[in-house]
Amino acid sequence: MNPSFRSEPAAKDVAAVRAVVASTGFFSEEEVRIAEELVEVTLEKGQAEGYHFVFLEMGGSLVGYTAFGPIPATRSSWDLYWIAVHASRRGQNLGRVLLDETEARIRAAGGTRVYADTSGRAQYAPTHRFYEACGYHRAAELPDYYAPGDAKLTYCKKLET
Amino acid sequence: MNPSFRSEPAAKDVAAVRAVVASTGFFSEEEVRIAEELVEVTLEKGQAEGYHFVFLEMGGSLVGYTAFGPIPATRSSWDLYWIAVHASRRGQNLGRVLLDETEARIRAAGGTRVYADTSGRAQYAPTHRFYEACGYHRAAELPDYYAPGDAKLTYCKKLET
Repeated sequence: MNPSFRSEPAAKDVAAVRAVVASTGFFSEEEVRIAEELVEVTLEKGQAEGYHFVFLEMGGSLVGYTAFGPIPATRSSWDLYWIAVHASRRGQNLGRVLLDETEARIRAAGGTRVYADTSGRAQYAPTHRFYEACGYHRAAELPDYYAPGDAKLTYCKKLET
Repeated sequence: MNPSFRSEPAAKDVAAVRAVVASTGFFSEEEVRIAEELVEVTLEKGQAEGYHFVFLEMGGSLVGYTAFGPIPATRSSWDLYWIAVHASRRGQNLGRVLLDETEARIRAAGGTRVYADTSGRAQYAPTHRFYEACGYHRAAELPDYYAPGDAKLTYCKKLET
């Protein structure tokens, strides 16, 4: 079961993305809906909406994905909107595999910086360690952004050119 | 010519917003297009898209406006996407008038925090002073976000409840 990458969303990805994102236990139903919607709107309107994807499949099933895109009105900054690996595949380094592939595609498209927002809550400590292990630094912290006591952290990586 | 507020966008506002935003000399053509698009998409699809407006008119003409909305997946944080006053009306305190009205509407809708992003370039020093005079503090700075040497500053105000 070699992993394979795909970037074009297919109709089946709406449900598959929902399953992956929901499996992690990290996201609210509202957030799961947002994740689905990025796929839906791209199926409907194409890349013009600004969303890019890396889908990672093993044995024909989606095991993880990223959603990302150029930030409007910036020279070459990109946002990582989503990165998720199915809970059943945790501990296999697939997040790193996905992020490496995603950064390679951003770099190929001329991107020089990647930004990733996440929550400051203790539950997200593994996420913070993941970004730091992947060469990201914590560039900003907005206290009480998501809710009282729930800060937004912005991680940033400058891509090698 | 008493100033009057309006929140429902009309077809004429697409061109009027373009004229106001372009007159300031602060925004690129890409940014002017984005400002127009928020009005267009709201005319087409209604408030479901998440954009709210305060249009300030004097003598039947648009002299300034704000665009703002609740930030998805946050409890009660709102983004101020746009605030602009026509260059011909500068120095009349209309930015403050617009921002006060906008904050009142955000508060009435249950919002507790307002975020406003702007550029760190020297050209924007009057914008920084404006936000600070209106009770905002600089909550984050992301160097080289818009372009090399062009940081993104995020201003924040906690609304009194």
